[in-house]
Amino acid sequence: MSKIKVGVLGATGTVGQRFITLLQDHPYFEVCEVAASERSSGKTYAEAVAGRWKVSADIPPAVAGMTVKEVEPGLDCRAVFSAMDASVAGPVEEKFAAAGYCVFSNSRNHRLDPDVPLLLPEINAEHVKVIEHQQKSRGWKGFIVTNSNCSTMGLVLPLKPLDVEFGLEAVSVVTMQAISGAGYPGVSALDIVDNVIPYIGGEEGKMEREPLKMLGSLRDGTTFIEAGFKVSAQCNRVFVLDGHLECTSVALRRKPPVEEFTRALAEFRGRPQELKLPSAPERPILVRTEDDRPQPRFDRDHGKGMSVAVGRIRPCSVLDYKFLILSHNTVRGAAGASILNAEFLKAEGYL
Amino acid sequence: MSKIKVGVLGATGTVGQRFITLLQDHPYFEVCEVAASERSSGKTYAEAVAGRWKVSADIPPAVAGMTVKEVEPGLDCRAVFSAMDASVAGPVEEKFAAAGYCVFSNSRNHRLDPDVPLLLPEINAEHVKVIEHQQKSRGWKGFIVTNSNCSTMGLVLPLKPLDVEFGLEAVSVVTMQAISGAGYPGVSALDIVDNVIPYIGGEEGKMEREPLKMLGSLRDGTTFIEAGFKVSAQCNRVFVLDGHLECTSVALRRKPPVEEFTRALAEFRGRPQELKLPSAPERPILVRTEDDRPQPRFDRDHGKGMSVAVGRIRPCSVLDYKFLILSHNTVRGAAGASILNAEFLKAEGYL
Amino acid sequence: MSKIKVGVLGATGTVGQRFITLLQDHPYFEVCEVAASERSSGKTYAEAVAGRWKVSADIPPAVAGMTVKEVEPGLDCRAVFSAMDASVAGPVEEKFAAAGYCVFSNSRNHRLDPDVPLLLPEINAEHVKVIEHQQKSRGWKGFIVTNSNCSTMGLVLPLKPLDVEFGLEAVSVVTMQAISGAGYPGVSALDIVDNVIPYIGGEEGKMEREPLKMLGSLRDGTTFIEAGFKVSAQCNRVFVLDGHLECTSVALRRKPPVEEFTRALAEFRGRPQELKLPSAPERPILVRTEDDRPQPRFDRDHGKGMSVAVGRIRPCSVLDYKFLILSHNTVRGAAGASILNAEFLKAEGYL
Amino acid sequence: MSKIKVGVLGATGTVGQRFITLLQDHPYFEVCEVAASERSSGKTYAEAVAGRWKVSADIPPAVAGMTVKEVEPGLDCRAVFSAMDASVAGPVEEKFAAAGYCVFSNSRNHRLDPDVPLLLPEINAEHVKVIEHQQKSRGWKGFIVTNSNCSTMGLVLPLKPLDVEFGLEAVSVVTMQAISGAGYPGVSALDIVDNVIPYIGGEEGKMEREPLKMLGSLRDGTTFIEAGFKVSAQCNRVFVLDGHLECTSVALRRKPPVEEFTRALAEFRGRPQELKLPSAPERPILVRTEDDRPQPRFDRDHGKGMSVAVGRIRPCSVLDYKFLILSHNTVRGAAGASILNAEFLKAEGYL
Repeated sequence: MSKIKVGVLGATGTVGQRFITLLQDHPYFEVCEVAASERSSGKTYAEAVAGRWKVSADIPPAVAGMTVKEVEPGLDCRAVFSAMDASVAGPVEEKFAAAGYCVFSNSRNHRLDPDVPLLLPEINAEHVKVIEHQQKSRGWKGFIVTNSNCSTMGLVLPLKPLDVEFGLEAVSVVTMQAISGAGYPGVSALDIVDNVIPYIGGEEGKMEREPLKMLGSLRDGTTFIEAGFKVSAQCNRVFVLDGHLECTSVALRRKPPVEEFTRALAEFRGRPQELKLPSAPERPILVRTEDDRPQPRFDRDHGKGMSVAVGRIRPCSVLDYKFLILSHNTVRGAAGASILNAEFLKAEGYL
Repeated sequence: MSKIKVGVLGATGTVGQRFITLLQDHPYFEVCEVAASERSSGKTYAEAVAGRWKVSADIPPAVAGMTVKEVEPGLDCRAVFSAMDASVAGPVEEKFAAAGYCVFSNSRNHRLDPDVPLLLPEINAEHVKVIEHQQKSRGWKGFIVTNSNCSTMGLVLPLKPLDVEFGLEAVSVVTMQAISGAGYPGVSALDIVDNVIPYIGGEEGKMEREPLKMLGSLRDGTTFIEAGFKVSAQCNRVFVLDGHLECTSVALRRKPPVEEFTRALAEFRGRPQELKLPSAPERPILVRTEDDRPQPRFDRDHGKGMSVAVGRIRPCSVLDYKFLILSHNTVRGAAGASILNAEFLKAEGYL
Repeated sequence: MSKIKVGVLGATGTVGQRFITLLQDHPYFEVCEVAASERSSGKTYAEAVAGRWKVSADIPPAVAGMTVKEVEPGLDCRAVFSAMDASVAGPVEEKFAAAGYCVFSNSRNHRLDPDVPLLLPEINAEHVKVIEHQQKSRGWKGFIVTNSNCSTMGLVLPLKPLDVEFGLEAVSVVTMQAISGAGYPGVSALDIVDNVIPYIGGEEGKMEREPLKMLGSLRDGTTFIEAGFKVSAQCNRVFVLDGHLECTSVALRRKPPVEEFTRALAEFRGRPQELKLPSAPERPILVRTEDDRPQPRFDRDHGKGMSVAVGRIRPCSVLDYKFLILSHNTVRGAAGASILNAEFLKAEGYL
Repeated sequence: MSKIKVGVLGATGTVGQRFITLLQDHPYFEVCEVAASERSSGKTYAEAVAGRWKVSADIPPAVAGMTVKEVEPGLDCRAVFSAMDASVAGPVEEKFAAAGYCVFSNSRNHRLDPDVPLLLPEINAEHVKVIEHQQKSRGWKGFIVTNSNCSTMGLVLPLKPLDVEFGLEAVSVVTMQAISGAGYPGVSALDIVDNVIPYIGGEEGKMEREPLKMLGSLRDGTTFIEAGFKVSAQCNRVFVLDGHLECTSVALRRKPPVEEFTRALAEFRGRPQELKLPSAPERPILVRTEDDRPQPRFDRDHGKGMSVAVGRIRPCSVLDYKFLILSHNTVRGAAGASILNAEFLKAEGYL
């Protein structure tokens, strides 16, 4: 079977670089096009990222020599992964979808659109059905599928089994987020040396809103009904390369014993696991039992960065339970999430 | 007026070093004795801390040449500040109190004793009255007064006006604590590089228990009644030198408008301010209005490290309000707190 | 005596901010004008630096409310301190000098001009005599005086007594430079986390060239003769807030015993010390005798950041001696240096 | 072919952990024994390293359940890798060699013994011939082979082709060493936050002495003649997890053009490459041509941590050339080096 040709939009930024490395030797997809802003277009990919390549692995040779194109339909591929800045992503992604491309977007612009899935196939695989409605109402041959913000991703995955099993009522979360989440150059070293930055613009709003759509339901294939629980988020930037750590408390309709709570997380599996998708980790949620885990440096790479680690599960005297979540923000929280979405849609016959 | 002679027990550790520097040129107190474990005793203070002096300021010359004594009564001073390790502090502090010394302890051992004040004079000045009961029931000429754990201190100061004005029902707090809080050598660099350590042994229990005694009441001068609200704490260690940052949410009996909430914090003053004690900051709580403050590096030194900075006051969708607290953990949270306690007791005639 | 009115050009950047804080309550000078790029001009200083104020001390109230002007002559002051970016500083500084201002520049543009002193009054006070020649040949009423690059400054101060006493033949220096030296936003946190950046554009050339002019001689008040020794520099950026550490080896014409070598450094004094200038530290070079000092965090603030700390003096098996130098890069290495230059020129009657 | 049984002495420390992970699935060797100090012996390996496991990869399951033995002969294996602390390694390693074990030691104790090879098979493969002499003169059936200090290793590998091609006269090196080089707990976070520690006890002496033996010659199979060049080292600890960066200058008997200098490094191959040993990287020296490389985070993992990266090759105005070296201190600089030594001795029939 020949591979599906894909392109990466915004290919030169830090998330774009992750797409390029994660798609190397992918069993379904082959990167055939890289596109970026005017500043880069016309250069080879290697030239365009010179001095800005921030992934530890080297540039895949197959991509290094490609010419960077402008971010316009006309690319020779079936699907595009969008890592564009939110300041430009919105209309460009629509243009690509209208032109027949399958758009997998990591940008925030269309996440809350009423006809766009905010997809994480472990938890809301059935939301893809809105795509037909999207195509019909917008007159598109292609479509847009989005994934959530990086800090939402780690949170919402463990919330799913808790909601299903025990009924979520409230979630209070405080994050300690990695600097890679801010892109490049992103956070100034002068701001973070001997310091924590207790503010990330727009982040708390995303964390408080996106889970409600993601854990909500799709009625009649056309209308999203938000979930009914409340989320309160406080977001901080700490001096860590990769891996968002989230101190989470939850109130539940039914308060289970700690063993049952733990088991619900540890045994959770979703459609990607059933389908054995290439990027699906065997265990989407990995429960650690040590006193002091998960930790960013040691737990961000489980399942090649696609497992979310959970630990320190214990009763909370204000809500019901509290625990830690650790997820790799540029893999499971960004590029890896988009790729898993594409794998899932391919498996479902959309692509 | 001649100064009161004081000694520092556990003078060579990181908190001991803070005592030494904060007491330099103090208007009430003069360090006349330094005592530490056997390993150090007999050496000059400068010799004993060689290679272990971790305060930026140099060793005060008046102390550098003092001979370090064993931690035994017999020191030529009226009061002692105890910065001893909790593994040994308990019985030693009792011995000193029995021998007639006024003991100001930074150790956890006696904090929850039913006849020992866990004193922060801005918030529970009236708790000192238990000292008479302590002396009578234990047959001591001296006494023990304790101050709270460093992470409790920053929390409990802003909680006081909130409790008085609006009635506290619940407090949820997630800390990002500085490495200096773990003493020396304390945290290994290998553990904290590119990492957060989401666990500090015993810390969460202290934060959940100490505020209830501190904001509770003293009945009949003999019995502490704990406050009725609940505290849930999650404690993390981050790569910051000094300054504990605390993401805090509170539920209140009466939910005020944000202006009233802010004013209650900003206008709070306590007995140390009325008495104009030397270590009392003009404003015990400093409210910052920027989006991204307080931050450890920029806000830990207000009021010479004795002001607690509060910021990002905003509604919480799970409890009522959420906000940030930043306090200098080795000044307001440790040595500075003990010294303020001593100043207050002197002003009240106990010393 | 009324103070001399001064202005700060490029007042909103990190070096500009240092000028503002160091000039607060200065005995000779009073900041009356702040100027910066178009983006800032018209705003109050506090508005212009909002979110970009990176000094720990607060903005001096007297300056906070000043209106930021454009960087054009017409400022109501006698002297200006220039902290402008090198991309614009050159012609602007000339315009100010032509218009009669005394310009004290921290920018690199005019440092190597044949009629401009590259002044460090401890080591080449006599170079100021070229000012007359500068004014005559350029037809200026004002003048330009420069100070060296931050990494040169720490090096050249200890080199002076070594050259005078023993005759310098060669200098090999490897630097570990603080991130504040790169301005704001400067170094990306993503570049420096778990890393060292072994390259600083242009820095090695400055370190290899500037010392030769600074330790050279001025012939006939008109011509600089460069010193004859060689300098080889290797520059690195490390994750330190302030303080450049320099591992230095020197070859000398006469190789003294280590005691004599040390004494030459420790006893060195210059004209600023004789004149007791306000910013002159009592000891320009502070010799530390511990095995492991100087260190950036502990030794950058000696003499209010104006002393250079030297340590680990020991024989070198390739050249003659090796030792460490530590200097505060934004105080002695930048703003403090310019201010000391201005104090010296005032004392000499030039201002 | 069945694998050779090996043991790891000092298996629970940071270097011991590296041995365990690097030997997982090794084609020649199988870890059958783990030994450590009394504190650990009797526990399973997983229990013994609980809370102290500092490698990112998980504990190999085959080793996790092994019982940790005492460090005494009687282990069921043919060879042992010694990662013991230098305070105990000396006599223990001798006991093992006497008992017939092949000892591959990472400790400093026997490195400079006149009958023990200080082996790096890329550069001094012929030194193994001293083993016969060692066995005869000591009456041992086994033997001891050592590898150099971690900071020596990165240096000496590129020095070899330079010495062969151009004749080394002098080497001046300044290191910026990773914290993992100090073991665990090793460096205190309190010492390294916002700081550089410009001193590592004993390190400079090792770097100045070991290269002379390693690049020296073995006469008559019995006597080492040291190389004749001089080395001057200055060692610093920086806040980097893994990877020692070394700023190096060299004086050469013949000064080649830069292309020839570069080619000598880039084209260098040794016996391990000829023999295609499992741990031998294809290119022992990897020359980077970017302005700002090598960097610890990006260049420590080339050749699975066994390639040494060199960059910024340029003329030096004091000596002849200067350049950067970056090597992975716990792989090529420690455990990986011992394993490569063992592979080489197996290939040569000693094992």
